[in-house]
Amino acid sequence: MNLKIRKAKKTDAEGILNLIVELAKFEKLAPPDKKAQVRLIKDAFSPDPFFEILIALNGSKPVGYAFYFFTYSTFLAKRTLYLEDIFVSEKYRSSGIGEKLFGELIKIAKKKKCGRLDFTVLDWNKKAMKFYNRLGAKALKEWVYYRLSL
Amino acid sequence: MNLKIRKAKKTDAEGILNLIVELAKFEKLAPPDKKAQVRLIKDAFSPDPFFEILIALNGSKPVGYAFYFFTYSTFLAKRTLYLEDIFVSEKYRSSGIGEKLFGELIKIAKKKKCGRLDFTVLDWNKKAMKFYNRLGAKALKEWVYYRLSL
Repeated sequence: MNLKIRKAKKTDAEGILNLIVELAKFEKLAPPDKKAQVRLIKDAFSPDPFFEILIALNGSKPVGYAFYFFTYSTFLAKRTLYLEDIFVSEKYRSSGIGEKLFGELIKIAKKKKCGRLDFTVLDWNKKAMKFYNRLGAKALKEWVYYRLSL
Repeated sequence: MNLKIRKAKKTDAEGILNLIVELAKFEKLAPPDKKAQVRLIKDAFSPDPFFEILIALNGSKPVGYAFYFFTYSTFLAKRTLYLEDIFVSEKYRSSGIGEKLFGELIKIAKKKKCGRLDFTVLDWNKKAMKFYNRLGAKALKEWVYYRLSL
């Protein structure tokens, strides 16, 4: 494997969207429709983007990605790198791509003086939890995630 | 009561910090130390602030606040208003201040075309959960919140 991880560019859009559809299937969630896909790419690559993307390539083939942005902890008074999605294409699992994406995210977070790297995991995804535990992340079981749909 | 809700200004700093210390006691968490307090105010009122603050005033007395910022849902391809903290001083509870802060947040979220308003709640805080449920928010019990401390 000839693995490379870098910030995504607009020319990566198609590859990223293919991976998102694969992730949606895996998470048993509806993938974004055409209109949402157009918005997503616009929001990622505008001059003042709403989130950032790391892409993992095997040669020129996109095989994984991480979507992230910066939130804020008022108690630490420091930024947090919030990992919205991390995904590695099924055929490329268990080859260290997830670890490498995480390693890059930690580097970026430290450069921005973040105090934390936060994310959520679906409770049935025990394999992912094992992976995150191995990296030193902890489940915050006392916090309940709430959502108001608008 | 002569209640007013507005975006916080730098001159509100002292009042906000007093309320944060009160919240920390209530949540049984360590309040931010002096250095963190200085960073917090700097990060809130810099030209490119890391988060925004709504303040609730009774006349000129700060009685509550909401700290929030904008995150992003890749599946909706829309922004989310993320409510990091909402707090009403103990003496002023049950007088509709929380609802009014929430109402303002919803207005701001809709103006920014957000699809969601997200937040977390401590699992022992049943009173808060009842309040959020009443507003139409739902606990996302299938998602586990994870954290890597840096």
